[in-house]
Amino acid sequence: MTATAASPEVRAALRGQQIEVPSWAYGNSGTRFKVFAQPGVPRTPEEKIADAAQVHAYTGIAPIVSLHIPWDRVEDYAKLAAYAADLGVRIGAINANVFQDDDYRLGSVTNPDPRIRRKALDHLLECVDIMDATGSRDLKLWFSDGTNYPGQDDIRARQDRLAEALAATYQRIGEHQRILLEYKLFEPAFYVTDVPDWGTAYAHCLKLGERAQVVIDTGHHAPGTNIEFIVAFLLREGRLGAFDFNSRFYADDDLMVGAADPFQLFRIMHEIVRADALRVESGVNFMLDQCHNIEPKIPGQIRSVLNVQEATAKALLVDAGALAAAQAAGDVLGANAVLMDAYNTDVRPLLREIRAEQGLDPDPMAAYARSGYAEKIATARVGGQQAGWGA
Amino acid sequence: MTATAASPEVRAALRGQQIEVPSWAYGNSGTRFKVFAQPGVPRTPEEKIADAAQVHAYTGIAPIVSLHIPWDRVEDYAKLAAYAADLGVRIGAINANVFQDDDYRLGSVTNPDPRIRRKALDHLLECVDIMDATGSRDLKLWFSDGTNYPGQDDIRARQDRLAEALAATYQRIGEHQRILLEYKLFEPAFYVTDVPDWGTAYAHCLKLGERAQVVIDTGHHAPGTNIEFIVAFLLREGRLGAFDFNSRFYADDDLMVGAADPFQLFRIMHEIVRADALRVESGVNFMLDQCHNIEPKIPGQIRSVLNVQEATAKALLVDAGALAAAQAAGDVLGANAVLMDAYNTDVRPLLREIRAEQGLDPDPMAAYARSGYAEKIATARVGGQQAGWGA
Amino acid sequence: MTATAASPEVRAALRGQQIEVPSWAYGNSGTRFKVFAQPGVPRTPEEKIADAAQVHAYTGIAPIVSLHIPWDRVEDYAKLAAYAADLGVRIGAINANVFQDDDYRLGSVTNPDPRIRRKALDHLLECVDIMDATGSRDLKLWFSDGTNYPGQDDIRARQDRLAEALAATYQRIGEHQRILLEYKLFEPAFYVTDVPDWGTAYAHCLKLGERAQVVIDTGHHAPGTNIEFIVAFLLREGRLGAFDFNSRFYADDDLMVGAADPFQLFRIMHEIVRADALRVESGVNFMLDQCHNIEPKIPGQIRSVLNVQEATAKALLVDAGALAAAQAAGDVLGANAVLMDAYNTDVRPLLREIRAEQGLDPDPMAAYARSGYAEKIATARVGGQQAGWGA
Amino acid sequence: MTATAASPEVRAALRGQQIEVPSWAYGNSGTRFKVFAQPGVPRTPEEKIADAAQVHAYTGIAPIVSLHIPWDRVEDYAKLAAYAADLGVRIGAINANVFQDDDYRLGSVTNPDPRIRRKALDHLLECVDIMDATGSRDLKLWFSDGTNYPGQDDIRARQDRLAEALAATYQRIGEHQRILLEYKLFEPAFYVTDVPDWGTAYAHCLKLGERAQVVIDTGHHAPGTNIEFIVAFLLREGRLGAFDFNSRFYADDDLMVGAADPFQLFRIMHEIVRADALRVESGVNFMLDQCHNIEPKIPGQIRSVLNVQEATAKALLVDAGALAAAQAAGDVLGANAVLMDAYNTDVRPLLREIRAEQGLDPDPMAAYARSGYAEKIATARVGGQQAGWGA
Repeated sequence: MTATAASPEVRAALRGQQIEVPSWAYGNSGTRFKVFAQPGVPRTPEEKIADAAQVHAYTGIAPIVSLHIPWDRVEDYAKLAAYAADLGVRIGAINANVFQDDDYRLGSVTNPDPRIRRKALDHLLECVDIMDATGSRDLKLWFSDGTNYPGQDDIRARQDRLAEALAATYQRIGEHQRILLEYKLFEPAFYVTDVPDWGTAYAHCLKLGERAQVVIDTGHHAPGTNIEFIVAFLLREGRLGAFDFNSRFYADDDLMVGAADPFQLFRIMHEIVRADALRVESGVNFMLDQCHNIEPKIPGQIRSVLNVQEATAKALLVDAGALAAAQAAGDVLGANAVLMDAYNTDVRPLLREIRAEQGLDPDPMAAYARSGYAEKIATARVGGQQAGWGA
Repeated sequence: MTATAASPEVRAALRGQQIEVPSWAYGNSGTRFKVFAQPGVPRTPEEKIADAAQVHAYTGIAPIVSLHIPWDRVEDYAKLAAYAADLGVRIGAINANVFQDDDYRLGSVTNPDPRIRRKALDHLLECVDIMDATGSRDLKLWFSDGTNYPGQDDIRARQDRLAEALAATYQRIGEHQRILLEYKLFEPAFYVTDVPDWGTAYAHCLKLGERAQVVIDTGHHAPGTNIEFIVAFLLREGRLGAFDFNSRFYADDDLMVGAADPFQLFRIMHEIVRADALRVESGVNFMLDQCHNIEPKIPGQIRSVLNVQEATAKALLVDAGALAAAQAAGDVLGANAVLMDAYNTDVRPLLREIRAEQGLDPDPMAAYARSGYAEKIATARVGGQQAGWGA
Repeated sequence: MTATAASPEVRAALRGQQIEVPSWAYGNSGTRFKVFAQPGVPRTPEEKIADAAQVHAYTGIAPIVSLHIPWDRVEDYAKLAAYAADLGVRIGAINANVFQDDDYRLGSVTNPDPRIRRKALDHLLECVDIMDATGSRDLKLWFSDGTNYPGQDDIRARQDRLAEALAATYQRIGEHQRILLEYKLFEPAFYVTDVPDWGTAYAHCLKLGERAQVVIDTGHHAPGTNIEFIVAFLLREGRLGAFDFNSRFYADDDLMVGAADPFQLFRIMHEIVRADALRVESGVNFMLDQCHNIEPKIPGQIRSVLNVQEATAKALLVDAGALAAAQAAGDVLGANAVLMDAYNTDVRPLLREIRAEQGLDPDPMAAYARSGYAEKIATARVGGQQAGWGA
Repeated sequence: MTATAASPEVRAALRGQQIEVPSWAYGNSGTRFKVFAQPGVPRTPEEKIADAAQVHAYTGIAPIVSLHIPWDRVEDYAKLAAYAADLGVRIGAINANVFQDDDYRLGSVTNPDPRIRRKALDHLLECVDIMDATGSRDLKLWFSDGTNYPGQDDIRARQDRLAEALAATYQRIGEHQRILLEYKLFEPAFYVTDVPDWGTAYAHCLKLGERAQVVIDTGHHAPGTNIEFIVAFLLREGRLGAFDFNSRFYADDDLMVGAADPFQLFRIMHEIVRADALRVESGVNFMLDQCHNIEPKIPGQIRSVLNVQEATAKALLVDAGALAAAQAAGDVLGANAVLMDAYNTDVRPLLREIRAEQGLDPDPMAAYARSGYAEKIATARVGGQQAGWGA
């Protein structure tokens, strides 16, 4: 297969792809052992959005920025949204952070203490206010809630409390807004996590209603989990709301998506293409959620967007007819070969072509490096408090 | 805590416990590398039931035997049930085996070939006939269906086929019968397994109706999975139908339950007791599903039943009031200590007492060893074809 | 088996047990998401040692405190050692921290930059100076060194650099001092870790000489790793230098030892007893290395020491003669039963007895709680900078 | 990068590559649940060699066949070697099977029973005789030995017995012969495996001498293990003897190499190329060890050889100078990009070119399919006993 012979449909699909980047990726991050600060890191939500706009400027397919509350709290959210629009990007999901207050030591919405549960719920509701102000559609909920020791709290009672908070939040969101519920196997809780797997998130979403959808963070699974199966299953159920893309060799490593297992990313995008869910109208958000602990952050984001794009291009090149025929015939090696033919194709020339057609530099990494932006922010952003996870 | 001071309620709960043993545990089993035959292994379903009856005779809490079709096919199932009754046990779940026919190389109910899907469905329906004939309530379904290679078959189409077969089977079962749907991470399929996790089984059960329930096989999870969370969650949803008990250090090792991680078994039984699901009327079946590859089979089963009983006794000894109080107070170490106090209690004296009260030998392992049954069957069961997994 | 009938040898072994506690356990710790501060946390090395002395005061078997450099840097180490002695404890291993300086972003002793490697080596040598000043025997080395991305650095070259730094350090230690080399599967490095497994640590120790020994941190393994096998193997090779005890359900969770899998801890201590390595003269250090993120720290340490003690008592109660006989006879269930008989014994009455004989309160947790120490330090230690991991 | 512009050195390296195929790959295999028989499967060692010769005929880089004793026992081994030579291939490693006799239920060379240990050792020595007769250089040892239950046998005593058997075998091999010692995490043993990891194999090899080398089976590791690290480490130590190539998503799935994680295979081959160990003279054997449970066996082997060849070609295309420069500069993204540039290159045109130059069909899969060999053996090989794992 020669990628540059790609059909107009494939090219159109690639031109229409939209990837969402997280504001927090541009701040400092690290492990519990050390956060290595980097020069030029943003001090304000505005500076984060400016950095995100760079990623879009060079890739052309990353026009959306997620916010994180309270990290991105500002006085005037409408003004922040307008600022983003001026830079060519728009506000995406609002992420609620209910894990960094001392009150949340034993949980937020599942805390045994009703006062703390109320506080956490209020934070969720504040995030919906911010959605209203920014025009954001999606409330993304990741709860770090859980327990570290057997017996520490009652597993079932925590589910009851979770259900209650989710119901109250669902009541509050508007007709065109959604709750995106994320799951995670473990960390920071080390015995029970209250939403540990897709089944738990799915069951809660079912009870809430159609505007509650599941988020798949690709780093949040047990070893051996077949993520593309979950993608296919949730798409079949109409309950896949979003991805948090990143990659991992071990646990929630939060490496650049596609860096650890590019073949897995391709298989995931194959299920997306197979279900015609790449289109923006499908309702599936393709977000990055990563930590650039040791590599520079803007180039790390550009590299990640390109990795998703390359995997998408390969998935679009799969010969669906030949694949279906081999599958129907029970031709194990033949069907596998159809898939691998697309994966083994070098799609970079095709993507360079498409970028050139759109007036972009064919090589986004090199173009950004040449731009001098990194040097500019390193010089300009001196003083103040660098943004970070703030553990 | 001294276990022998256990309350009448605890003692009654222990006396009422019922564990189901599988007919196939008495046949030969092994790994793909070797099946080591043992002397005295049954040749017929009747001989398997006779061995199972021994387990009940010495433990007093294992009065039910699961059958496995086609391994346990007989001409007259009513007669087989009567035979079991004569030996003091009854027929439990009927397990459908749709993985050992050459036709099932690429799947049974999810096979791309409609002829093979029909054949598999017919086998399921035959199992319901056998349920009718034996008075069995439960059809237990484990599908080995899946694929080995990316692209080999369409993940979503296989779910459609699965849903169709399940719906047809659900239509057929009676008002007082149930489908118990089991999940498994992998093996024998090594890329996609069509029912890989509890979420998938649960979603299919929801669509079928109230008489479809999930089976938790304790060996069928990814490393790190918190099984007691799944137990608690499914109990909360009213969808836990049964356990397949065994233990494992690595994958689906099928070791004796409680042998690899007795603390995990205790935590599972704690959730059962916490939800008042130990009672037979709760509808949760407690089955063993194990391979005694290198140890003698009847003693292996007795040991396993005792392990479940010991974990149950410990779970019953948890001071629920003290636990709830510590949990409500956010006393992490205190709540953990309440649980551990029960776990660290030696319940064997209590169980010996209870057995003696019931006219059983206090030491079932020793009593069976003294009985001469092992020697008798080794002598008597010569010739014929030993039962086995027959891979 | 009744534990209180334990032999004089068992009682003597329990009285002679020594467990080492880490100074950093008393400071704040957390995950990358949040460090929850606790009242009364030490501000100085002296306050950490005072807290550690409490653990010894109530358990009677924790007379040693490990230091961590630079966290425990003081002007006068001899004075610090004398301070410890006044409180009834002594200084144990010196732990070198070469992972929290911005220079170490890409590694310490394996960094591609020779200047940084030199800086890291100098830090190791400073730690040996501190050993000389405190009378410490052991230099404990854990390197967080590694890479996050394929290609980032040369795997083999990093081994060469590691070997060079180890050799230089080994040259520097005295005749009665040792290097204890720790390994870890991953974190904070997420692709290659330079000392990822016991084999790597062992191979480097072999090249260094007899005073280089391997440290087993019980939380530093891949899922499914049989830790007691490694214990037995290194003891057979004479290369087990120390444990870092903690427990985990997932990754390096650093929960209290024995909390996640008490049976595993028992199996580890069984190998220790089997090799007669419990005695202080065996040269195996039994250290704790844990994070008390949500539970109070001193009680968390006391609970951990008791967990090790209980596992040790059970291991000492194994009937070695009966076990060997069953093993020699190939009696799978019999041999397992001998081991489980000891594990299932409630050793708490025995340990209470031994404590009473030694003039200790039989219940260390309750005695500490009653002592008022927690309230005292919460009141007294106000102001200053609480100790912590300082990521 | 355009692969067809590859240097003469790269082309020469690819032409010189040699991959060893296993005789057992052409027989039936399966899981413990079912072995699906395939038409045309060999009945004799000669027929297996004939099938292996087909793989070489179409790929040009698979001229060696491993034997497995007793599966490949014949009266006259010299004649078998001559038969292979006539077909254009030669005999490679001799694999000793000491796991399929009823005597080996509790182990072979580590069995508690000295009679069985002697029998196992005699089998190893017989294999050396066969090496002498066939001109084979390598004795490949994989021991399934281990235990299923804690306490079942003494971990350390089993190491003593293992060391004794290895020493006796090492004594027997000739000056130009080698022992290749394989390790495996688990299966068929489910608690302790006597050679579970590379560290154990390495330690035993060190004691034996220079002609004892470690075998890396790519499917024999715990989840998360970095295999290329082990490759690099053993190469640095001069102790990497051979690979058993296959791939896996979960445990020892034995899928076609490169099918589950082609990027991992590339990273492994990158370490090989980096250490100049691709050359036949390096002493590293590149063997396949796979189960084609559901796909046809000869095409499955051809596909696997091609997968290794493609990964090798990509590894050879890595720009070593640019990589080293980026690594030295601490340029995380730049170094990663150099590696990924090679991985993302489509090397299939280059390999087609090289095949054509050598007089081979550019498309081995298609050429084999057209050849009619599959149909011929399906017709001819009727009757007799198909070869298989024979569990």
